[in-house]
Amino acid sequence: MQLYIANQNYSTWSLRAWTIFAHYDLDFECKKLSLFTSEFYDTLGDITPTSKVPALVDGKISVWESLAILEYVNETYLAGKAWPASANEKAHARAVSCEMHSGFVALRNEMPMNCRARREVILSEAAQKDIARIEQLWSQQMEQYPEGWLFGDWSIADAMFAPVALRFITYGIELSAPAKQYQQKVLNSPEIQRWLQEASLETDIVDEDEVGTPV
Amino acid sequence: MQLYIANQNYSTWSLRAWTIFAHYDLDFECKKLSLFTSEFYDTLGDITPTSKVPALVDGKISVWESLAILEYVNETYLAGKAWPASANEKAHARAVSCEMHSGFVALRNEMPMNCRARREVILSEAAQKDIARIEQLWSQQMEQYPEGWLFGDWSIADAMFAPVALRFITYGIELSAPAKQYQQKVLNSPEIQRWLQEASLETDIVDEDEVGTPV
Ligand SMILES: N[C@@H](CCC(=O)N[C@@H](CS)C(=O)NCC(=O)O)C(=O)O
Ligand SMILES: N[C@@H](CCC(=O)N[C@@H](CS)C(=O)NCC(=O)O)C(=O)O
Repeated sequence: MQLYIANQNYSTWSLRAWTIFAHYDLDFECKKLSLFTSEFYDTLGDITPTSKVPALVDGKISVWESLAILEYVNETYLAGKAWPASANEKAHARAVSCEMHSGFVALRNEMPMNCRARREVILSEAAQKDIARIEQLWSQQMEQYPEGWLFGDWSIADAMFAPVALRFITYGIELSAPAKQYQQKVLNSPEIQRWLQEASLETDIVDEDEVGTPV
Repeated sequence: MQLYIANQNYSTWSLRAWTIFAHYDLDFECKKLSLFTSEFYDTLGDITPTSKVPALVDGKISVWESLAILEYVNETYLAGKAWPASANEKAHARAVSCEMHSGFVALRNEMPMNCRARREVILSEAAQKDIARIEQLWSQQMEQYPEGWLFGDWSIADAMFAPVALRFITYGIELSAPAKQYQQKVLNSPEIQRWLQEASLETDIVDEDEVGTPV
């Protein structure tokens, strides 16, 4: 099984898919392509109709779109355990994962993931609203699962929100105590430590993701 | 079970969720709220953290986000049959559903759904690329399933792309013969006929969705 990802310093969608493999220590080959190079588009053009990362090739099956990859891996290799067991919580976890998959556009545009950088940005009202929604979700879930993942055990929802935890470090976003506790949970996890370590070895600069004033 | 939707003339995300109930003739109560009214936000604010339609209330469970609702209904009431049975096709159907859930932003912005109107618009390159991707997907699938739904039997992928079939009528987008055949399949389905009939009874005008020159 090959998972295609891009620059670990920048690629949030790659991180979302990669995390499930790393968290459950699944056997996979990670193929890293440099964003916006011709090798990137040539390789992905053969595997996907969208030429974006992440992309997964599992024998004859190819899957693209982060959330579709996460669902596929969960069903095929994890017997469904990467969603909460209760119907209510599973629906809730899917809803918030879908919120991230389709939304938070202002936050995504104004605060590109940039693991190695520490920056200051002036945020639009829309981005502040996005942050408030995340703050609300994380702190509500921590009330229910103090020191846990969003739904107690690790789930796909944690994969979807992991890049935000990193962005909040880069751009120095202040969080309430419970939300910060969740952020720390993400940051201290072995898989995110490993991602950051691998990202720190990269030297490529993607200009469009370099925003804000260095602090 | 209550499904909250908005104006049927305009609300594409409502249509995506509604379609699975209509297609399988599931027992549900449809609650229509007028977009951007205070009743809309008051009602949805009590049910969802996002205050958007669609939203589903099933006893004690509430679900928001179109794709999360479709997955929930499929698992809870359809024993999974709203995804293709083969692992390969299921992965493919999920991937294209996720493409629609997160993407096609230019198409969505420049061609808002407006069932009752017939308009001409000048499209950006990005919107033309979106249309080309849809043309590619629909025609490829029709090669495999002539006269079928995208994956033979009806699936969540058909729910996700249904609003596009309607937009292509409103804005007079020309399609290849196989893609047009799929569009006709969507348009002729009893559920879409019913949606259009209900939409045609509405009189509300949402200015921001009224774009293009009347033809
Ligand atoms: N909705 C997609 C988004 C994928 C995406 O936008 N990936 C970026 C990198 S993080 C990419 O491949 N960009 C290259 C391009 O757009 O040309 C998903 O969930 O996987
Ligand atoms: N990603 C969401 C999108 C939902 C959405 O944007 N719904 C629109 C109507 S089609 C809405 O409720 N708009 C009201 C608002 O944004 O205030 C989904 O898949 O359900």
